Amino acid sequence: MKLIPDDELQALLVPHIRDVPDFPKPGILFKDITTLLKEPKILKLTLDQMALRFQDQGIDHVVGIESRGFIFGTPLAFLLNAGFVPVRKAGKLPSATYRKEYALEYGTDVLEIHKDAIQPGDKVLICDDLLATGGTAAAALAMLEELGAQVVGALFAIELTFLKGREKIPNCKTVSLIQY
Amino acid sequence: MKLIPDDELQALLVPHIRDVPDFPKPGILFKDITTLLKEPKILKLTLDQMALRFQDQGIDHVVGIESRGFIFGTPLAFLLNAGFVPVRKAGKLPSATYRKEYALEYGTDVLEIHKDAIQPGDKVLICDDLLATGGTAAAALAMLEELGAQVVGALFAIELTFLKGREKIPNCKTVSLIQY
Repeated sequence: MKLIPDDELQALLVPHIRDVPDFPKPGILFKDITTLLKEPKILKLTLDQMALRFQDQGIDHVVGIESRGFIFGTPLAFLLNAGFVPVRKAGKLPSATYRKEYALEYGTDVLEIHKDAIQPGDKVLICDDLLATGGTAAAALAMLEELGAQVVGALFAIELTFLKGREKIPNCKTVSLIQY
Repeated sequence: MKLIPDDELQALLVPHIRDVPDFPKPGILFKDITTLLKEPKILKLTLDQMALRFQDQGIDHVVGIESRGFIFGTPLAFLLNAGFVPVRKAGKLPSATYRKEYALEYGTDVLEIHKDAIQPGDKVLICDDLLATGGTAAAALAMLEELGAQVVGALFAIELTFLKGREKIPNCKTVSLIQY
């Protein structure tokens, strides 16, 4: 499998994303990845191309953000010969956690990671399905850095570029396969 | 990668499962898979051995149940050259869904799948992290059969055999890597 240039890859993948109007609330045009996931060859292409963009960088752990980040994060860990570490919403992880509160449009939310999942100096790659405003990714990045990890990059299937989310995670290589 | 016999595989994997007492509530000894997931070689072993157990069966889709079923389901789909289809809790999937209500210890819960995710005759494999009482797996099985799928099997990382969950999904090949 060879690296396909970004613009060619985008052209291959975009037809497999479904636009769903008014989800999760009126006025939002939701980018649905399930139509991409269910096609064997397109799923394989997506995962292989994700992995190729972070190969040979000595990544120890892929950190997947609940829950669609799990969908891409584990196969990516497999392909990069890395471990997989989940970041979850509050109360979901069973053992001792490190917590990070972050601001939403209205109110706050909390991310958690197992305290012993990351060792200082570990090279990690953050993975989620979507980069929108960047609030969740920024919280995950801050949390990982506070634990002493070296965050090599952040990888997303889709990026809504008009929301400028990548400006909130300036200190790592940010890659998205499909940009709107 | 060769198929490792069930008892040898169990012996290799059990040391990487962490017991967490009193989670999610007092009296429950939770089997934590995150300690297995974070070890690159053990994660790879787990996924390869899962795939070997359902190779050459012409599986079209791996159906992963939210949210820890996503962790194993997508890499499994990748390894089996299948597509991945998520089954989610109510209200999470953006497009038109087929719903299945099922009984819990107290009250009921709902699973959803996109109506157009499965075509009649599709060969599918159900995947989740844990087979406990089997309520969720039975609901997923019933839902898939009602949609016309041929459910080839159900695959779990862990099975709590004393809860007899596999008796609730009698019409498919049930495989678990680690049995307690």
